[in-house]
Amino acid sequence: MGNGKEGLSAVLLVHCVDRKGIVATITDFLYKNGGNILYLDQHVDAERGVFFMRVEWALDGFAVPREELQDTFGELIADKLSLDFKIYFSDERPRVAIFVSKLQHCLYDLLSSVRSGFWPMDIALIISNHPDLKGVAENFGIDFHHVPITSATKAEGEARELALLSEYDVDFIVLARYMQILSDDFVKHYPNRVINIHHSFLPAFPGAKPYHSAFERGVKVIGATSHYVTAELDAGPIIEQDIVRITHRDSVGELVRKGRELEKLVLTRAVWNHLKRKILVYANRTIVFD
Amino acid sequence: MGNGKEGLSAVLLVHCVDRKGIVATITDFLYKNGGNILYLDQHVDAERGVFFMRVEWALDGFAVPREELQDTFGELIADKLSLDFKIYFSDERPRVAIFVSKLQHCLYDLLSSVRSGFWPMDIALIISNHPDLKGVAENFGIDFHHVPITSATKAEGEARELALLSEYDVDFIVLARYMQILSDDFVKHYPNRVINIHHSFLPAFPGAKPYHSAFERGVKVIGATSHYVTAELDAGPIIEQDIVRITHRDSVGELVRKGRELEKLVLTRAVWNHLKRKILVYANRTIVFD
Amino acid sequence: MGNGKEGLSAVLLVHCVDRKGIVATITDFLYKNGGNILYLDQHVDAERGVFFMRVEWALDGFAVPREELQDTFGELIADKLSLDFKIYFSDERPRVAIFVSKLQHCLYDLLSSVRSGFWPMDIALIISNHPDLKGVAENFGIDFHHVPITSATKAEGEARELALLSEYDVDFIVLARYMQILSDDFVKHYPNRVINIHHSFLPAFPGAKPYHSAFERGVKVIGATSHYVTAELDAGPIIEQDIVRITHRDSVGELVRKGRELEKLVLTRAVWNHLKRKILVYANRTIVFD
Amino acid sequence: MGNGKEGLSAVLLVHCVDRKGIVATITDFLYKNGGNILYLDQHVDAERGVFFMRVEWALDGFAVPREELQDTFGELIADKLSLDFKIYFSDERPRVAIFVSKLQHCLYDLLSSVRSGFWPMDIALIISNHPDLKGVAENFGIDFHHVPITSATKAEGEARELALLSEYDVDFIVLARYMQILSDDFVKHYPNRVINIHHSFLPAFPGAKPYHSAFERGVKVIGATSHYVTAELDAGPIIEQDIVRITHRDSVGELVRKGRELEKLVLTRAVWNHLKRKILVYANRTIVFD
Repeated sequence: MGNGKEGLSAVLLVHCVDRKGIVATITDFLYKNGGNILYLDQHVDAERGVFFMRVEWALDGFAVPREELQDTFGELIADKLSLDFKIYFSDERPRVAIFVSKLQHCLYDLLSSVRSGFWPMDIALIISNHPDLKGVAENFGIDFHHVPITSATKAEGEARELALLSEYDVDFIVLARYMQILSDDFVKHYPNRVINIHHSFLPAFPGAKPYHSAFERGVKVIGATSHYVTAELDAGPIIEQDIVRITHRDSVGELVRKGRELEKLVLTRAVWNHLKRKILVYANRTIVFD
Repeated sequence: MGNGKEGLSAVLLVHCVDRKGIVATITDFLYKNGGNILYLDQHVDAERGVFFMRVEWALDGFAVPREELQDTFGELIADKLSLDFKIYFSDERPRVAIFVSKLQHCLYDLLSSVRSGFWPMDIALIISNHPDLKGVAENFGIDFHHVPITSATKAEGEARELALLSEYDVDFIVLARYMQILSDDFVKHYPNRVINIHHSFLPAFPGAKPYHSAFERGVKVIGATSHYVTAELDAGPIIEQDIVRITHRDSVGELVRKGRELEKLVLTRAVWNHLKRKILVYANRTIVFD
Repeated sequence: MGNGKEGLSAVLLVHCVDRKGIVATITDFLYKNGGNILYLDQHVDAERGVFFMRVEWALDGFAVPREELQDTFGELIADKLSLDFKIYFSDERPRVAIFVSKLQHCLYDLLSSVRSGFWPMDIALIISNHPDLKGVAENFGIDFHHVPITSATKAEGEARELALLSEYDVDFIVLARYMQILSDDFVKHYPNRVINIHHSFLPAFPGAKPYHSAFERGVKVIGATSHYVTAELDAGPIIEQDIVRITHRDSVGELVRKGRELEKLVLTRAVWNHLKRKILVYANRTIVFD
Repeated sequence: MGNGKEGLSAVLLVHCVDRKGIVATITDFLYKNGGNILYLDQHVDAERGVFFMRVEWALDGFAVPREELQDTFGELIADKLSLDFKIYFSDERPRVAIFVSKLQHCLYDLLSSVRSGFWPMDIALIISNHPDLKGVAENFGIDFHHVPITSATKAEGEARELALLSEYDVDFIVLARYMQILSDDFVKHYPNRVINIHHSFLPAFPGAKPYHSAFERGVKVIGATSHYVTAELDAGPIIEQDIVRITHRDSVGELVRKGRELEKLVLTRAVWNHLKRKILVYANRTIVFD
């Protein structure tokens, strides 16, 4: 597995109907073209009969030129095996849009993570339905666009957002406590490319104030969930979840504070795994290769 | 706090309407009678205006004789302050009934914990609606009573169980994956003295097969919850919760296996805290002093 | 316990030789002066015979004026009982100095936490032995002082740092991955008021590169430790520790990345507990009330 | 991946010098013989240039007869690629010897796990240097051999143990808090087949009483480590580690109690992974496929 010292590598993500010979065929293709495998993991969903694979190999000395890889693999392998596939290169830096409202904790955590240099992504722009965090964006030298959304202006607002995403050539979107529900139409433009952080477990207490409900019910742990956004609210494929322990001493305010620490952690892990192309989605579940 | 080396101690659990002077009055009572406090913790539920306290003190040299403590404290302090209180002594060994069905993992864990010598409780008897675990009980030299329960015989069966609990002088009950719902009437005999292990978080997926639901939803953690049993199913005060991480690789079978390891852990912790008189219940929530 | 809605409160931290009557005397003092206790917890170190207490009470209606509290409590109670004590008020905002070198992750996390509004502290200044993070300080509008330290200039550098701390009226110091060892003399100016984050467990692998050692040894968890700085390197009282799981797949680079996420978390929790006056130190151990 | 519903499968564990084509060659062999891959994971140790793989496939319809698989794979593939390999079959039930002294918690946990039916292994015998747990063995119907060991009789005692292991046809050994150090000679008979539970992290406090040292140092977490036993004490390849949080309230006795709960958990997970043939050992580190 890559340790950052190697040169360029490619990542291939595959899913298809499970049958014999898929790994053999793909690895044979890599071998015959001189590809040295750095990472390979696969998974079979036995119930649904679906095969998933992630393979990463060094491009140094690989016979197929990078710009032809998509076509070559498509024609020689994918078409024959009826594979769904995607190819990524390790020097690509995805361009990300962060959507926020007024809460800043997740935004700061993402900004400082990218600044750390470990994270191969660029924050293309920040979009918000409130002007509050404009200053944060400016401090980090990132374009900030205030797109107010009301029920009356939703269609118009989302149209503007989509135009911005297109203009800024955005690869995926992170909702860093963005307090608006995206329309089905919007979501369809970025399938499995909008990552949300939900301030609760799923299944969760119903309603908009999960920390209050958690307090009332007297639970001993609270959770957070990061998931891809789909048309159905909070029902998208779960990428990552974790919890923090609480006690009877924790007021609702303390739950909120502890919860926000957790939200940062869970969202960051989800974005990292997306960024490293470790996630496949199928049947509303994620395969997260480690 | 007790380290096992001291002699006899008493534990006082108190709750009452919050107001000034409660701690002062109680600790003054202890002080004037020569009580050395080993542990004191308190909690105020600010919203409901309720005060909770747990205090433990050495009985060596304490002026009030043990057998008069209940009455003396009651008359001098509790009546004046309108306290709800309970007093326990460190040399008491509560007598426990374990209810099981066919699953043995929680039963074994409790049996071996008690055998370890750390646990100051006696398992008085094991009651089951199935005969399967009779041999386990025999191996540990514990009486086993098979009380089959059907919807037709429920009242009769519970009557027999209550008679057994009385005959064996049982202090509290642990449902170690007992697959029967206790009637309201039964529960009323042992308020906050029936501890259940629920193989899920609360809030949980609805239905009887939470691990299947968790698998379907693609969650990344599964949980278990130990709670006191109340009339409303799975709605009693939560004592302890914890989780275990899962991945896409885990089949439903693996979820069940990991879940059972977790159930043992969570139930054991809950019973330990009950045993150590660390739990107060109010408004369907627990205060668990540490 | 405070939920932020109450008015002013005071926190009293006490330690002394354990004997009967301490809680009674102190709570009686509070009661007679009309103090409503919001939080009280105590601990007895049975081996060493030392008593510790944290009590918080509402100042609304309290008979002793705030500015006389230190003297009054000292004369009436502390002198008689030979207590060590400290009193804090809930509206005090401690002034903190953050020391950094080149790594920014802990700095950003602290800055954004304070910005969140939950944290009642002010970051008075940032001191660094490198100029790299000057821009971060400027973005947050915080004074930044570059104090280069070499072995030749250490005494001089620390003298300048102490002068700055005095000038900025600093209450406590957070070493947010500050890569210099503070001299004994420096530490003596801020006993139990310098919080460090150590990128390892204690006990730890010896040497300066714990993540490399952890990788070599093939451990399955890595840890981080936050502690008060004392004259002996990495031997000060531990405030908080936690871990993150790793696998054979994690390169040293991944250990570093995961470790940094953990360092943020552990340092943040330690600073929070210090800020909330929840920590007492005795015999090189901490009592951290929850 | 196996969910218990499939028929027979084989697991192949491989390690060798890393080079191109290994996965292709092996998966091609499986494909051409009609093997349906249920699980495949691999790992490259980039620094040492070593390749590791675990592949599991269904034997139903596989062209190479089970009894010829070792030879066929050896001749056609392993010899050519200079692979180290092992093949296991899913219907094999390894025979395990459990070594104990006087502590019973890990023993009970293993016994009840096997009883649960989830665990495909047989406990062949229990060996102890003390007679105390003979009754436990009898209750579970397992042969118990008391082999006292003193420094004077160590060679003789181990010879008797080795004879017993041979007589009972034991595949691997679990030291369930066995309080004797095995000689190098003994260990050599069962390389990477003796699993120990160490009641501490590694690196750990030196000495025989880690919980006492942990208490003295005031740590906030305690750990346990399961590892393969090698000639060097406590230096063998780590299989699994985990922690439990502690506080200032925990006496040494409480640390021991919490530690034992943890030891059960960590040892059980390690044995499970060994049993499922998920572990490869190289350069004193483990690869634990998930």
